Amino acid sequence: MNTVLHNFSAGPGILPQSVVEASARDLVNFSGTGLSVIEVSHRGKEFVAVMEEARTRVRGLLQLGDDYEVLFLHGGASLQFCMVPYNLLPEQGMAAYLNTGVWASKAIQDARLLGRVEVVGSSEDRNFCYIPRGYSIPSDASYLHITSNNTIFGTEMHQFPDSPVPIACDMSSDIFSRPIDASRFGLIYAGAQKNMGPAGTTLVVVKREHIGKSGRRLPAMLDYAVHSKGDSMHNTPPVFAVLVCMHTLHWIEEQGGLTVMEQRNRTKASLLYSEIDRNPLFRGTADTADRSLMNATFVLSDEQHKAAFDALLREARISGLEGHRSVGGYRASMYNALPRSSVQVLVDVMQELERNNG
Amino acid sequence: MNTVLHNFSAGPGILPQSVVEASARDLVNFSGTGLSVIEVSHRGKEFVAVMEEARTRVRGLLQLGDDYEVLFLHGGASLQFCMVPYNLLPEQGMAAYLNTGVWASKAIQDARLLGRVEVVGSSEDRNFCYIPRGYSIPSDASYLHITSNNTIFGTEMHQFPDSPVPIACDMSSDIFSRPIDASRFGLIYAGAQKNMGPAGTTLVVVKREHIGKSGRRLPAMLDYAVHSKGDSMHNTPPVFAVLVCMHTLHWIEEQGGLTVMEQRNRTKASLLYSEIDRNPLFRGTADTADRSLMNATFVLSDEQHKAAFDALLREARISGLEGHRSVGGYRASMYNALPRSSVQVLVDVMQELERNNG
Repeated sequence: MNTVLHNFSAGPGILPQSVVEASARDLVNFSGTGLSVIEVSHRGKEFVAVMEEARTRVRGLLQLGDDYEVLFLHGGASLQFCMVPYNLLPEQGMAAYLNTGVWASKAIQDARLLGRVEVVGSSEDRNFCYIPRGYSIPSDASYLHITSNNTIFGTEMHQFPDSPVPIACDMSSDIFSRPIDASRFGLIYAGAQKNMGPAGTTLVVVKREHIGKSGRRLPAMLDYAVHSKGDSMHNTPPVFAVLVCMHTLHWIEEQGGLTVMEQRNRTKASLLYSEIDRNPLFRGTADTADRSLMNATFVLSDEQHKAAFDALLREARISGLEGHRSVGGYRASMYNALPRSSVQVLVDVMQELERNNG
Repeated sequence: MNTVLHNFSAGPGILPQSVVEASARDLVNFSGTGLSVIEVSHRGKEFVAVMEEARTRVRGLLQLGDDYEVLFLHGGASLQFCMVPYNLLPEQGMAAYLNTGVWASKAIQDARLLGRVEVVGSSEDRNFCYIPRGYSIPSDASYLHITSNNTIFGTEMHQFPDSPVPIACDMSSDIFSRPIDASRFGLIYAGAQKNMGPAGTTLVVVKREHIGKSGRRLPAMLDYAVHSKGDSMHNTPPVFAVLVCMHTLHWIEEQGGLTVMEQRNRTKASLLYSEIDRNPLFRGTADTADRSLMNATFVLSDEQHKAAFDALLREARISGLEGHRSVGGYRASMYNALPRSSVQVLVDVMQELERNNG
């Protein structure tokens, strides 16, 4: 097999090469110990420093005030589907959810087991190809849950709702891709495996005032209060995943921070979407106004070109472009670490297909 | 700082050097893709093969029948403290627990939130320095929960109880250290970071007949049935942690399997315990009959030798020997990957201390 040159994987997704290399070094000789980072105590000063550095960098990049707690937890974003209601929704309370795709639906499913849920808006009627607008948020909801980027459907919230209640946001696939006003959120969570690091840790940023307020008695691992008290070390944390996140956060800072990430991501997305719109052989699947900067979803105008297009992709050593089975077609994920040149190669391939079928 | 030559860390603990090296290679170029294992889809054929190989090797080493499911989950063994009762304890049921230390106590604490718990035996009266005997197990319990090895206190169950109800065992710190008759267990779980791999994944071996039987409606990530249906891929698994486990399981097989592991572990433990018993400057803290092959806990007969002993340890480039704060003294963890030569160096240091203070 030819090695891949252009990694458009939807997640786990591309990471900066320098981050992978630094992590590989720590895997063999961590912090001068002569030991691997995965075979030393997480309570040793070397790893405690990694955890603290990762948390501090999150604070810096998101410009968080002291009223926010930053946690690196186990379990993937999917575990947060139940942890958010366990921690923020009183047993007799109600939570508002916006349904924008597969992951939002799973979050709703878990929340429904734990309390009353009101789905305030949904784009299910058109296979989640847009972000609902004009919905109203009940002021007696404990929180409004939204999903800022919908990997599968290629949609992203470019504006966040004005909400009378705290917003809890699944930001798994677009965190650190652009500056956000974090103070507008009560809680943000994100699985690491897109813009941060390896699958296996989840970042939770939560306003301290929401911790321990649902009135539920929770098992330790499901309780933000326990993790907060333990500085993300209530139990052995997913050491390696946190280490890689720390390196990636450092890389983002070195590159110039979230403003630079956004500029680059806009440039890449614009390059690809322009080609999708121009090239008669392709058609985008998400509504233009709600297109994601992270995941561009598109289909062939005519399925008869599939074999030829796939062959050109292979030849160009592009990988990870298959669309999710619920949408079909193609999905180009353009996370922070994907260089503009990879997008250009994809655009070139799309134009080559057009020329070959002119 | 001098690099460490002898890693006695209690966990995350020592792994075979060849496993660390193979994992570092996969981190840079996984399965010939040219990409890192942490930046490719977990649903790609390359990683699916890793997950299947890891599960198959667990089956082989534990000689599991088809009536057992093997899962690699997120969350650490601590998450199992609630998942075991969520999945195995009906709301009106009762579970029996044996209290042999800090981790057993935490398991009991979580279970008490979720149902009725009977603590059938405890060694708390002597700071958990022994394994309780002669307790009776109520036949109406949904299960009996035990902790096979107690890392902090240096005790290990050398025989498992005859139980009229299914046994659920936290085997985090001695799994794969010796052959066991897995058919005697309804459920075994183990955090990876001792004998298997990096912190961040937990092995769950569960008899299929116990899956989905508590009658509770559970959030997806807490439900063994969901993970079983998804072949440990309900959500993105902790990819790198599973990969390292796969390599370690392979290493165990190559070395000759669990019988060889046990022989080596007995040799190492015998070498160290003989010295602890012989050398008047040291005293073991666990009852002799219940001493752990994995974690030997001991104290100085006279604390005045502490500075001298610690200096000798540093000089010999031994690390990870500090005892847990609840016991004090020293703890030598001798997981599978620790060579006999490291134990010999420790014994030499103990004898040197004796000579210097003869």
